[in-house]
Amino acid sequence: MAWNTNLRWRLPLTCFILQVVMVVLFGVFVRYDPEADAHWIEKRHGNISSDIENDFYYRYPSFQDVHVMIFVGFGFLMTFLQRYGFGSVGFNFLLAAFGIQWALLMQGWFHSFHDGYILIGVENLINADFCVGSVCVAFGAVLGKVSPIQLLIMTLFQVTLFSVNEYILLNLLQVKDAGGSMTIHTFGAYFGLTVTWILYRPNLAQSKERQSSVYYSDIFAMIGTLFLWMYWPSFNSAVSNHGDAQHRAAINTYCSLAACVLTSVALSSALQRKGKLDMVHIQNATLAGGVAVGTAAEMMLMPYGSLIVGFICGIVSTVGFVYLTPFLESRLRIQDTCGINNLHGMPGIIGGIVGAVTANEASIAVYGQEGLKKVFDFEGSKSGWSPRKQGQYQAAGIFVSLAMAFVGGAIVGFILKLPFWGQPADENCFEDEVYWEVPEAEKSNSYHHEDTTLKPMAS
Amino acid sequence: MAWNTNLRWRLPLTCFILQVVMVVLFGVFVRYDPEADAHWIEKRHGNISSDIENDFYYRYPSFQDVHVMIFVGFGFLMTFLQRYGFGSVGFNFLLAAFGIQWALLMQGWFHSFHDGYILIGVENLINADFCVGSVCVAFGAVLGKVSPIQLLIMTLFQVTLFSVNEYILLNLLQVKDAGGSMTIHTFGAYFGLTVTWILYRPNLAQSKERQSSVYYSDIFAMIGTLFLWMYWPSFNSAVSNHGDAQHRAAINTYCSLAACVLTSVALSSALQRKGKLDMVHIQNATLAGGVAVGTAAEMMLMPYGSLIVGFICGIVSTVGFVYLTPFLESRLRIQDTCGINNLHGMPGIIGGIVGAVTANEASIAVYGQEGLKKVFDFEGSKSGWSPRKQGQYQAAGIFVSLAMAFVGGAIVGFILKLPFWGQPADENCFEDEVYWEVPEAEKSNSYHHEDTTLKPMAS
Amino acid sequence: MAWNTNLRWRLPLTCFILQVVMVVLFGVFVRYDPEADAHWIEKRHGNISSDIENDFYYRYPSFQDVHVMIFVGFGFLMTFLQRYGFGSVGFNFLLAAFGIQWALLMQGWFHSFHDGYILIGVENLINADFCVGSVCVAFGAVLGKVSPIQLLIMTLFQVTLFSVNEYILLNLLQVKDAGGSMTIHTFGAYFGLTVTWILYRPNLAQSKERQSSVYYSDIFAMIGTLFLWMYWPSFNSAVSNHGDAQHRAAINTYCSLAACVLTSVALSSALQRKGKLDMVHIQNATLAGGVAVGTAAEMMLMPYGSLIVGFICGIVSTVGFVYLTPFLESRLRIQDTCGINNLHGMPGIIGGIVGAVTANEASIAVYGQEGLKKVFDFEGSKSGWSPRKQGQYQAAGIFVSLAMAFVGGAIVGFILKLPFWGQPADENCFEDEVYWEVPEAEKSNSYHHEDTTLKPMAS
Repeated sequence: MAWNTNLRWRLPLTCFILQVVMVVLFGVFVRYDPEADAHWIEKRHGNISSDIENDFYYRYPSFQDVHVMIFVGFGFLMTFLQRYGFGSVGFNFLLAAFGIQWALLMQGWFHSFHDGYILIGVENLINADFCVGSVCVAFGAVLGKVSPIQLLIMTLFQVTLFSVNEYILLNLLQVKDAGGSMTIHTFGAYFGLTVTWILYRPNLAQSKERQSSVYYSDIFAMIGTLFLWMYWPSFNSAVSNHGDAQHRAAINTYCSLAACVLTSVALSSALQRKGKLDMVHIQNATLAGGVAVGTAAEMMLMPYGSLIVGFICGIVSTVGFVYLTPFLESRLRIQDTCGINNLHGMPGIIGGIVGAVTANEASIAVYGQEGLKKVFDFEGSKSGWSPRKQGQYQAAGIFVSLAMAFVGGAIVGFILKLPFWGQPADENCFEDEVYWEVPEAEKSNSYHHEDTTLKPMAS
Repeated sequence: MAWNTNLRWRLPLTCFILQVVMVVLFGVFVRYDPEADAHWIEKRHGNISSDIENDFYYRYPSFQDVHVMIFVGFGFLMTFLQRYGFGSVGFNFLLAAFGIQWALLMQGWFHSFHDGYILIGVENLINADFCVGSVCVAFGAVLGKVSPIQLLIMTLFQVTLFSVNEYILLNLLQVKDAGGSMTIHTFGAYFGLTVTWILYRPNLAQSKERQSSVYYSDIFAMIGTLFLWMYWPSFNSAVSNHGDAQHRAAINTYCSLAACVLTSVALSSALQRKGKLDMVHIQNATLAGGVAVGTAAEMMLMPYGSLIVGFICGIVSTVGFVYLTPFLESRLRIQDTCGINNLHGMPGIIGGIVGAVTANEASIAVYGQEGLKKVFDFEGSKSGWSPRKQGQYQAAGIFVSLAMAFVGGAIVGFILKLPFWGQPADENCFEDEVYWEVPEAEKSNSYHHEDTTLKPMAS
Repeated sequence: MAWNTNLRWRLPLTCFILQVVMVVLFGVFVRYDPEADAHWIEKRHGNISSDIENDFYYRYPSFQDVHVMIFVGFGFLMTFLQRYGFGSVGFNFLLAAFGIQWALLMQGWFHSFHDGYILIGVENLINADFCVGSVCVAFGAVLGKVSPIQLLIMTLFQVTLFSVNEYILLNLLQVKDAGGSMTIHTFGAYFGLTVTWILYRPNLAQSKERQSSVYYSDIFAMIGTLFLWMYWPSFNSAVSNHGDAQHRAAINTYCSLAACVLTSVALSSALQRKGKLDMVHIQNATLAGGVAVGTAAEMMLMPYGSLIVGFICGIVSTVGFVYLTPFLESRLRIQDTCGINNLHGMPGIIGGIVGAVTANEASIAVYGQEGLKKVFDFEGSKSGWSPRKQGQYQAAGIFVSLAMAFVGGAIVGFILKLPFWGQPADENCFEDEVYWEVPEAEKSNSYHHEDTTLKPMAS
C-alpha cells in the first residue's frame, strides 16, 4: 500500500487556509485582557496598589517554562528515533504553533468571552500551551506514521474536543485539575491511542529497523526529558491560585518527580536480564510522577504523599514499557510509537484518582476554614459542597475524559484514514526523507544502516 | 591567497588587552544602580512599599531568557554547518562575553551616567545583551570566514556604533523600539551584510562542500531555533514599561511567532519541487515574526495585527532564502552564510514600518488618555507630540539605522580586510580545524566526506 | 582486576531501599512551610499586603534556573566523553534525584526544624539543589570509573557531610556564602578529589582511548557549559536577601563570568603550540568566574572587582588544565576525569578568599549603616561584630570546608573501594555499554574507533 507523499500543494494550502482563518477569527474576536491593555493604567488607579500586582508577574516565569516544555521538551523527547529527528522537532513545532492559536480561540470562547470579545492575557497563553500539550502527547502515539497534514487536521479536532472536555470538567463538573492529569494527559493519551488504533498498519514491521534509536539520538532525546522533568513544577503550578497554592504545587511536583526517577531506574535494571538500564525508561518513566501529581499538586497532598505517587508511577510506567506496550501492539493492534500509555495514559488516570481521593479527604483541620474554601472554590455556586462531593465529581471527571478521548479519537482516526492526506507507506515510516530535504551526505553515506533508500512510491 | 592562521600570540594579546581595558574602565566608571546598592535599604524607607518593587523582580526572569537567546539561541542556531560547530558556539560565546562588557560601558555613558559614574542594574544587563544581539546577527553573515580576532575587532566597533545609533534613535528622535526591530535587527543585519560584502571572497566555492549541513548539525541548530522562538516574547517585553506594556508585548510576540511558523512551512514546501520541507527555512524563517514585531510589540497592535505581521514575515523570509540569498551572492557579491538578510534584515525593516504605522494610528480611543501618554512618553520634552509625529520619527529611525549600518559596516569591513588578523584561506573556510583542536578520531576518520584535510598554509 | 558489573539485583534494591526510607522519613518529618500551606490565607490577613509577597515570587525563577544547572548543566557538561553520554546525563539524573530528597531532610533538620517538623518552601528546594550541586562536582572527578550504586552511596554520605559542614559554616562560624564557593565548590571538589585518590586505578590507561572526546560529544558538552554559564547569576543570587542583595549578586556574577571567558580563551590559545583553542578549556575554565564570585557576590564587591576575579580565574583554571591535571595524575595519583580541581577546587578557594577579603574591607561608607547590618547580619547574636571579625571567620570557613572534604572523602573513598558495588574493570571505564543497553547499530558498527567490544568480565 503506497500513497502519494508529495505534499507540494496540499501542505501549503492547508497551512494557508488555517492561518487565514486564524487571522480572521482573531480580528473578529480577540482583544487584550484588561491587565494587558493600555487602558489599564486608568482602570487600576485606586484599585491595585502597584504594577507588580499585574497577573503577568505572577505567571510569566511559569509560562515560559511551560512554553519550553511544549516546544523543546516534547519536540526533543521524540528525537530518539534514529531517522526522525527533523520530523519529531519540526512537526511538533508546526502543530503546536497552529494549536496554540486555535486553543486561544476555543478556550477563549468557553472561558474568557466578555461582551463579544475574547480577552487574552498571560493565563490564556499558558492554557493554550496546556491544550497543545495534549496534542503533543497524542503525537507521540502516531509519531513517524503520519504526514504533517494529518497532524494539522488532528490538532484542529483535538484542540476542539479538548476545550469541550475541559469545559465539562472545569465548569460543569467543577473539578480541580491544575496540572491537567485528566484534561491534558488522560484525554491526550487515550485520544492518541484510539487514533493510532484506527490507523493500525499491519505491515509496519517493514520499517522496523528505523523504529529504534542510535547513540546520539538517545542523547538528543534526553534534552527533551530533562527540560520536561525540570520545568514540570512550573507546569503543575502555572495556573493555580496565587500564593500558597502555586507554591505548594511546585513543591509537590518536585517531590513526586524525584521519587519517580529512583523507582524507574530500579525497575529498568530489574526487568533486564543483565541488569542494564534502558534509555527508553530513563527518558520516559522518570516523568510519570509529574503527570500523576497534576490534579492534586495544588491540594494538601503533603510532600510524602507526592513521594508515594512518584514511587508508584515510576514502577507502573516502566513495567508498562516492558510488558504492556508489546502486548498492546501484538494483541490489541495499538502501535504506540513513544509508549504514551505508560507515560501519560496510566499515570494520568492515577493522577485523576489521586486528585479525587485527596479532595475527598480534605478537611478544615488540614486546610483551615478559609483555605478549604479557596483551594476548592467552595463559594458561589459551589457553596455548600463538601469535600466528599468534590471527590465524587473529580472521579467523574476521569470517566468523562476517557469517554471523550475514545469517541473523539475514533472519529478523528477515521477522518485521518482518508487516503489523500499524504501519509507515508509502511516501508517509509519513521524516515525523515519522506517529508524533508535531508542533507546529501546522509543519503549516500548513511552511517547507521545500509538501506535507507526509499522505495519508489506508486500513487 | 593564504594567511597565517596561527593565532598563538595575536589572540591571547587581543583578549588580554581588551579585558584589561575593561577592568580599568569599570574601575573608573561603573558602580551599582541604587536598587542594587546596599544603601538601598536606607533610601527606600518611606518611598517604596516593599522589596518586591525592586526592578529586579520585574525584569530578571526576562533577562535570563534573553541571556539564553544570546548564548544558546544564536550560538546553536549557527551550528548547522557540518564542520563549524565549535566555531559557531565558541566564537559566539567569546564575542558576546566581550561585547556585553563593552556595551555596559558604551550604553552606560549614554543612558546611565550620573555624577561621573555609570550606575548599572538589571535593565543595563538586558540592554547589553540586546546590543550584543546585533553583533550575533552580523556574525551570521560572516560565519566561517573570519578569525576570532576579527570577531573581537568587529564587536568592539559594532557595539560602539550600535550605542551611537541607539542614542540617536531613542534620545534624539525619541522613537520607541522595545524589541529592537530597528536598533538591533535592521542595524545588525545591514552592518553584517556590508562587512561581508567588503570581505567578499571570489574563491569561496573551494570550501563549498563544507557550507552545507549534516543530519546532526541540523538537529543541533534546532536547539538554537527553539530557544530563540520560545523566549522571544521575553526579548520584546524585557525593557517595556512595567505592567500592561510588558504583558502586551509578550502576547503580541507570541501571536506573531505562531503565525510565522505556518507560513514558513507553507512556503518551504511550495517552493520545492517535491514539496519537501527545508530545515534552513524551519530554522530561520519561523523566527522572522519575532523580529518584525519588535518595535510595535508594546503598542496596541492587537493580537490579529500580530498574526498578520507574522503571516507576512514567514512568507518574505522563506522566499528570501530561496531566491534572494543566491541572487545576492551571485550578483551583488554578498556572501551571507546564515541568510541574515532574510531573518533579520527584511523583517527588521518590516518591523520598523509596522511600528511607524502603529504609532501613527494610535488614538485616545484605543489607548486611553493616560495610556497613550504612557506608551509613547508624551510627557516632558515630548508633551504636545501627536501620534502622527511619533509615526514620522519612527520612520526616520529606520533610515538612520540603515545609514549607520552601511557606513559603519563599510569602515569596519575595510579594517577587517587588513591581512594580519589571522583570517582563514578560502579553501579552509567553514572548518573548525583552523582554529580549534579537533578530536583525533575526527581528523583521520571523517564520517561525512572524504576530504577534510587542510591544505598547508603558506604565510 | 575485574568485578561483576551485573547490577540486576543490587541497583534495584539500593534504589528501592533508599526511596522507601525517604518516603518514611518525609512522612514523619516533612510538612509545608507556612507560605506553602493552605492555612496561609488565614495567617497572612493583616500581616502581609498581598500574595506577591509570598517568598515563592522572590525565588521561584531563580530556583528553576538552578534546577536547570544541576540537571542539564552538570549532566551535559560531562557528556564530552565519546562513549559515556548515557552515563553522564543518566547517572547525574539519578544521583541528583535521590540527593535532593535526602538534602531536604538533612538541611531541614539543621535549618527548618520547627515543633518536630521540617517545614519546606521554595528556599529549601533551592538549597537542596545546591547541596546536590556539590555531589555533581565530585561526580566529575570519578566520572566513568564508578557504578551507579557507588554514586548513590557517595551521594548519601556526601549530602550528609555537606549539611554538617554547611551548618558549621553558616550557623556556628556565621559566615556568608550565598553562592557556595566554600560549601558547594571547595567542599565538593576536594571531597571528590580525595575519593578518586583513594579509588586510584593504576591501569586506567587501558581505557585511555575512550577518555577523550569526539566532535559531537564536545558540542553536547557545550549545552551543559552554556546553561551553567548563563544561569550562574541566578545560582549566586538565589538565596540572597530580597531586594538589593539579590540584584547585586546577579550583576557581580554576570561581570565575573564575562571576564573569565576572555582570559580562558587567551590562555587556551597561548598554551598550545599552534595557538589553537581547546574545547576542554572553553567548556570548563569559562565557568571558573562563577565559582569564584560565589561567596562575595552579594557583597559590595563592585563590578570591577568581579571582573578582576573572573580575569584571574580564567587564567588559573586554564593553566590548571594544561599543567596541573597531568601532574596530579602522574605524581599524586589523582585521576580527575573532568578536571574539577581547575573548575571548582582552586576557584572555590579563591572565592572563599575573595569573600573573606571583601568582608574584611566592608565599611559603613560603602554599605551604609543599615546596609552593613543587613548584608552581614550584624544583628542579634552577631551584633557587635566588626567586618574584620567577619573576614576572619570567613577565612576559617575555607579551612573547615577543606578539612571536612579531606576527612570525609577519605572515609567515603574507602567505603566505595569495597569490591561489591559493581564497579567497572579498568579496561571498561568510560564506556556506557557496561551499565546501559546501547543501541545495536552502535555496537557492531562503531564509527569512532574500531574496538569498542567489551572484554568478557570474570566475576
